[in-house]
Amino acid sequence: MNYAMIFNNIGKILLVEAALLVFPSIGAVIYGENTLLSFALTIAALAVTGLLCVRKKAKNKNIYAKEGYAIVALSWIFMSLFGALPFYFSGHIPSFVDAFFETVSGFTTTGSTILTEIESLPKSLLFWRSFTHWIGGMGILVFVIAVMPKTESSSMHVMRAEVPGPTVGKLVSKLRASARILYGIYCVLTLVQIVLLFAGGMPLFDSIVTSFATAGTGGFAILNNSIEGYNSLYAEMVIAVFMLIFGVNFNLYYMILIKQGKQALKSEELRWYIGIVAGSVIIIALSLINTKHNVGESFRYSFFQVASIISTTGFSTTNFDTWPVIAKLILTFLMFIGACAGSTGGGIKVSRLMILVKSALRDIRKAINPRSVETVKLDRRSVDEPVVKSTSVFFATFMLITALSIMVVAIDGRDLVTTSTAVVACMGNIGPGLGAVGPYGNFADFSTLSKIVLSFDMLAGRLELIPMLMIFSPYAWSRKYS
Amino acid sequence: MNYAMIFNNIGKILLVEAALLVFPSIGAVIYGENTLLSFALTIAALAVTGLLCVRKKAKNKNIYAKEGYAIVALSWIFMSLFGALPFYFSGHIPSFVDAFFETVSGFTTTGSTILTEIESLPKSLLFWRSFTHWIGGMGILVFVIAVMPKTESSSMHVMRAEVPGPTVGKLVSKLRASARILYGIYCVLTLVQIVLLFAGGMPLFDSIVTSFATAGTGGFAILNNSIEGYNSLYAEMVIAVFMLIFGVNFNLYYMILIKQGKQALKSEELRWYIGIVAGSVIIIALSLINTKHNVGESFRYSFFQVASIISTTGFSTTNFDTWPVIAKLILTFLMFIGACAGSTGGGIKVSRLMILVKSALRDIRKAINPRSVETVKLDRRSVDEPVVKSTSVFFATFMLITALSIMVVAIDGRDLVTTSTAVVACMGNIGPGLGAVGPYGNFADFSTLSKIVLSFDMLAGRLELIPMLMIFSPYAWSRKYS
Repeated sequence: MNYAMIFNNIGKILLVEAALLVFPSIGAVIYGENTLLSFALTIAALAVTGLLCVRKKAKNKNIYAKEGYAIVALSWIFMSLFGALPFYFSGHIPSFVDAFFETVSGFTTTGSTILTEIESLPKSLLFWRSFTHWIGGMGILVFVIAVMPKTESSSMHVMRAEVPGPTVGKLVSKLRASARILYGIYCVLTLVQIVLLFAGGMPLFDSIVTSFATAGTGGFAILNNSIEGYNSLYAEMVIAVFMLIFGVNFNLYYMILIKQGKQALKSEELRWYIGIVAGSVIIIALSLINTKHNVGESFRYSFFQVASIISTTGFSTTNFDTWPVIAKLILTFLMFIGACAGSTGGGIKVSRLMILVKSALRDIRKAINPRSVETVKLDRRSVDEPVVKSTSVFFATFMLITALSIMVVAIDGRDLVTTSTAVVACMGNIGPGLGAVGPYGNFADFSTLSKIVLSFDMLAGRLELIPMLMIFSPYAWSRKYS
Repeated sequence: MNYAMIFNNIGKILLVEAALLVFPSIGAVIYGENTLLSFALTIAALAVTGLLCVRKKAKNKNIYAKEGYAIVALSWIFMSLFGALPFYFSGHIPSFVDAFFETVSGFTTTGSTILTEIESLPKSLLFWRSFTHWIGGMGILVFVIAVMPKTESSSMHVMRAEVPGPTVGKLVSKLRASARILYGIYCVLTLVQIVLLFAGGMPLFDSIVTSFATAGTGGFAILNNSIEGYNSLYAEMVIAVFMLIFGVNFNLYYMILIKQGKQALKSEELRWYIGIVAGSVIIIALSLINTKHNVGESFRYSFFQVASIISTTGFSTTNFDTWPVIAKLILTFLMFIGACAGSTGGGIKVSRLMILVKSALRDIRKAINPRSVETVKLDRRSVDEPVVKSTSVFFATFMLITALSIMVVAIDGRDLVTTSTAVVACMGNIGPGLGAVGPYGNFADFSTLSKIVLSFDMLAGRLELIPMLMIFSPYAWSRKYS
């Protein structure tokens, strides 16, 4: 392990976080809120720690896969520990574990909250809470790659560990240029959403923070009853469409930019994504027509909720916990599936589901005819066998961690549905689950142990397991293999 | 597809089933029950159909993997269709779909029942119901291999499709000898259990049918409240220990027979199995001590229920649906895990879980150090990479079928827990689930569609997916590839 380089990188991240905290501080000044001191103290703590970390230059600048994973895992943990301080210092979240949970939920774009009352928070804190979504959505390390000059090879390991999906594709040959293009698209889309929401009559502050939460597919709202509170069909439709947009692989937007739009539309993952959304919307709407709403309302609620869950955002416009069982089950399965690879969304990812389904079909064919030689294909190109295998192993690991976490959270003694969907919602970075953690509920009543496990799950889900699992591996830290 | 050979083999199975139906017919005579006609009609139907199938000799005697799967899948379906007739003809199960469900549940050793009142059934029908467990436990095709002379190569394909587990090991070089040894061990163990139960004061009839249901890890009881009805600690402990015994890989018993007992005890799968049982018993007992029972009772109930669920038998001695959430969750996870490969138990199998966990750990190490070359090891021997891959794909396919089935069964509009555990209990061949399908409940109230889906799930679980999935594959039946 190249500890010096790990410290250096974490130091840079903490300094960037200090800089990002200037925005909510300005907010505190504008709105004349007494949170300014909390932000200032946090910035000071970050600056001191960050400078200490970067002071000692590394002699050996090379980093490999394991350093990449370590940097990513530790950066996210430290970012969240420091990011929780404004909530804690200001006294608005009196328990540090709660403040940490809320911040992890923010950065990992989960959107699960321990707050029982959101609207009473100062605007500067609400801004910071939603801003963590926006920062975490595209990844702070990708941001660092975008703004700082570095050697290509080492950055690749970091990018691979932070960008979601079974494979990571560089857009252009230079990694830094790729990261800049990604952030450019991200900023422009966020800006378009802010303008559209504001044009539709939403207050500017609400438009900005809601767009942050949509762009990161996070789901923190600033009203107690989420997007339902705006009671605006226009706002709902804008948000639903943008949730779906941010759930698409950003590479496709780059392809549209370089005038390969036709090829982008041929993406198999995009087609599955649209297919799953359309199918889910129709089935759920039909189940609602029979039981709760008229045709128009059924499709309105169904479309918003499907977009919210598959993109792993987690906004709500109604209490879907009271929906028919089939609707709740579809939403639960969508929590597992999640958005497209290379998007800001979480979950297992549509492309992994495709690889799993296709390799299952391939195995059946192979069982029927053992002599057949077939590869799993995505976008008409063969998927490398190691990717097929690691996708299956990823799925199994995802389910094993989910099962183990559910068992630990079960110690709290809450009901089956609350316990299991709380874990699934955190692993998939969704936000709300069902039962007591449904859209009208929150995560306040879990024990400290459960909140720590759920925080781990959110990080494991966002960083796609390996980085978070690695930090528990003695093998990784052993000097013997360094 | 060699249709002639497929018909021939199905014909043989149906003739064997006709012969096996002689036993309950004798019972009907002994107890002077009016079910004799129903059995006679069924035997006649089986004999006629069976003879028609075997009449036309196959010119080409070769069968390959796909014929093996087709024979197994179709045999089990036809066995169940005919096996349901005595229940249907006698009028004791008036709906044919219900009778089919009950028979599939019997042969697949699931033990889920649609009967709301069991004790009023004639003894000959109760005998047939439990006898299906015993027949299905070791597999009727393995039985045919044991008693009929055949070419080795073709039998191997059949055996591979019917014996549970990621790999099939021949005990001795001759497959027929292996099958005979397996059946020998199976018969002796069943006999020992009958004697032990009878010696403890259980009526002979009850001892026999309970031992059939234990040996096959089925779980049909002949009292309405299962083993609880005997209210005998002795009987409970005998049954619990035998449930665990029948959940162990039968190869280990063969090793003990040929005096390699020491090596058998070193089996890694056995150690995991014992470890999982011990851990689960302790945690569940602790959760019961805190809430429901004294220490002795807690361990008594916990031990019996853990043995019942991990062996996928499904007997109950108490209504575990009212247990604390952590206990119910552990039981649910045990439903997925199931027993050892090469046992009569169902589920994913302990050895598959081991391969999944070990390949997950391997992938983490490989991510940390990409140059490392490691294999997944079981019993100190490397597991072939294709087995590792197909195990992961098996797991993913198992979960996908579970998810899809849950969605179809959800159309019935029953609660989340009932809907999902009904499917899990059928896929894993357990028997009872939680909620309305808990140990005090039954499967009577599901719709016809749900009962067909659950029957498919029981067969898919028992035959380990591929054979049942294959029959839906146009690729398998296409003349182009035959």
